[in-house]
Amino acid sequence: MGDYPEPVETRHSIPQGFRFAGVHCGVKRNPNKQDLSLIVADRPSVAAGVYTANLFSAAPVQLDRERTPSRDIRIVVANSGNANACTGDRGLEDARQMAALAAKACGARDTQVLVLSTGIIGEPLPMERIQRGIELASAELGRDAEHVIEAARGIMTTDSSHKLFSRGLEDIFPNAALLGLAKGAAMIGPRMATMLGVLLTDVTLDPTEAQDLLSQAVERTFNCISVEGHMSTNDTVLLLANGEAAASPLSQTQRMAFAQNLEIVCEELARAIPSDGEGATHLIVVSVRGCKTDADARRIAETVSNSPLVKTAITGADPNWGRIVSAAGYAGVPFDVNQVTLDLNGYRLFQAGAPVRCDSHAVSHSIRDQFETRIDLDFSQGDASIRFWTSDLTAEYIRLNADYHT
Amino acid sequence: MGDYPEPVETRHSIPQGFRFAGVHCGVKRNPNKQDLSLIVADRPSVAAGVYTANLFSAAPVQLDRERTPSRDIRIVVANSGNANACTGDRGLEDARQMAALAAKACGARDTQVLVLSTGIIGEPLPMERIQRGIELASAELGRDAEHVIEAARGIMTTDSSHKLFSRGLEDIFPNAALLGLAKGAAMIGPRMATMLGVLLTDVTLDPTEAQDLLSQAVERTFNCISVEGHMSTNDTVLLLANGEAAASPLSQTQRMAFAQNLEIVCEELARAIPSDGEGATHLIVVSVRGCKTDADARRIAETVSNSPLVKTAITGADPNWGRIVSAAGYAGVPFDVNQVTLDLNGYRLFQAGAPVRCDSHAVSHSIRDQFETRIDLDFSQGDASIRFWTSDLTAEYIRLNADYHT
Repeated sequence: MGDYPEPVETRHSIPQGFRFAGVHCGVKRNPNKQDLSLIVADRPSVAAGVYTANLFSAAPVQLDRERTPSRDIRIVVANSGNANACTGDRGLEDARQMAALAAKACGARDTQVLVLSTGIIGEPLPMERIQRGIELASAELGRDAEHVIEAARGIMTTDSSHKLFSRGLEDIFPNAALLGLAKGAAMIGPRMATMLGVLLTDVTLDPTEAQDLLSQAVERTFNCISVEGHMSTNDTVLLLANGEAAASPLSQTQRMAFAQNLEIVCEELARAIPSDGEGATHLIVVSVRGCKTDADARRIAETVSNSPLVKTAITGADPNWGRIVSAAGYAGVPFDVNQVTLDLNGYRLFQAGAPVRCDSHAVSHSIRDQFETRIDLDFSQGDASIRFWTSDLTAEYIRLNADYHT
Repeated sequence: MGDYPEPVETRHSIPQGFRFAGVHCGVKRNPNKQDLSLIVADRPSVAAGVYTANLFSAAPVQLDRERTPSRDIRIVVANSGNANACTGDRGLEDARQMAALAAKACGARDTQVLVLSTGIIGEPLPMERIQRGIELASAELGRDAEHVIEAARGIMTTDSSHKLFSRGLEDIFPNAALLGLAKGAAMIGPRMATMLGVLLTDVTLDPTEAQDLLSQAVERTFNCISVEGHMSTNDTVLLLANGEAAASPLSQTQRMAFAQNLEIVCEELARAIPSDGEGATHLIVVSVRGCKTDADARRIAETVSNSPLVKTAITGADPNWGRIVSAAGYAGVPFDVNQVTLDLNGYRLFQAGAPVRCDSHAVSHSIRDQFETRIDLDFSQGDASIRFWTSDLTAEYIRLNADYHT
């Protein structure tokens, strides 16, 4: 094996006008693990959200869905260790209460708060601990990288590292920035886990614009990752824009530049999730090109990414073209099998309906020696393309998920 | 762990007018493993087939698809060890040649032969060995249970046992019978494996009737199993009816009785496949009830059955209701989460949108102590229901599939 995933963390361009904190308050047992985070905007901010499509959406998802898009959000309060999902009416009350406590502690109104939760499902939030955590965190808010990292740690569950990525937006406005925090990793432990993402910027967006930009970016990034195809009850990505760096709205050109940066940040965070997948020894990048429609490309990429046979082939450094093309073949998208080409790490393995003779030892070594494996499929039918990221499937994954007990 | 899967094998009601053989001819390396089978009907028989929907369908599938439904089939020739898939024009020629060789050896016409292949893909059939196998097998044809078992062994790949099940059809005609052979087990080794099934009866059916009956039975049985959701290039189920036991067509009542027996035999064979799944320690039976449409029920059952989180929970004897209900929640079928009930091995785990307090140790023991785990979901929305069979997911599965090298 080559390099392992590392915390997505660079020079930290931190947008102005936000304060951060992450503390331990006892939702998690381990006193060394943060389990409550606060992100506070100095003034009312525009906020947008994209949420899980799972019918069992958690209480905080239901609350945030009501409250976004908005131009009046001040606070994101998040806890890990308990997802507040499948908790009925009490769960919704608790989520509202959590928002109210954060509002009170930071001098905002209840409705100016968005809530994130991740962790075990089916158990009520320990509200006394949450309250203590909010009080602790509100006393520790700060604007520097250290505080940002604490906040990123407060949303981790079985992630092996916090996930942060930022970009300066100097091309758009002097001193403007875009910062993203995320968690993912385990699709499970305990019980089932969640992808959370928070994007923060100090440019000015209006609510519809923020929602459109976020939805678009998520569609090409967070919605293109798959560890095991199991969608959580709590998946949420939020975007807050406070206008601290520039009060004027974005021009058309600036909006395009912002969209690009937003996609870059989301992509870095999204890639970090399967890279840190439970037991993962490879990040697999599945690129599908030459389809008639985006939906076709997505369907094929998703089917290949979710195939345990493809995943285990990569685990075993096996350039198994058969598993890959046959996964494409049952995706439910019509194509001419004689027009398909498959490259693995740049080696052509399949074309014209049959395998291509190649140095399979070299391909195998290229898989074994790198953390990232590239699968490229071209269908020669059109211009639609997509990229998916997934992890391989290892005995360690099974151990982690079979040994966990509710 | 409790009992392990056993060969599906009972008293063997063998339909009249068929002869069987299974031999080793060298497609597989191990000289103790049969790799070529012949099933020969004494006279032209009605034949129907149901085939893989994978766009990469293997050469024998293409050939059989052309030739069924038919009223003039005499022979099924099958080999294991090589799937003759992704082999281009040569593959199709080889499949035709294989049919011609079987026809010649058994005194039939080329077009009276159906062909089955399973094993590695992307490599041409070793035609000399196939020829030798057909000659050997044609010299060893017999009508008794031993010969049937040899034929069932000739289609095995990584199956741990041959799969046979039969029913006397005395209620329809004296001495009539229905016999089924199948293989499945591994969805892979080597490279990717295949589900094959052959149903044989001595009642009289017409080709359309045979096709309708088979399609219906497969829809509720073989199409309701899932080991890892990876559909093979070679999946095929054939039904041959030779009319030896009764020349007269079935009455309406007799047809219903035959359909019932056909579904029972197909179900036994279908269940045997995930029971013998690579590394499987549990057969999981997912029953979905109370849906608005059959398609809704199928979609939910399939999503739950394919979830690695559900499978690993059962591996670990964990009554993890959260993984199960949330899998249903992302199946893409709308339902009211407050109307859902979930029972596991008869224990109520979830209803009214929240988990039910229960003795989770007792549930866990009931999983650990039995080979079969029952998951029952009711959506209280309508009358549509379906049953799916899948296997759990173990570290042994990963080992088998990651360690195999092309």
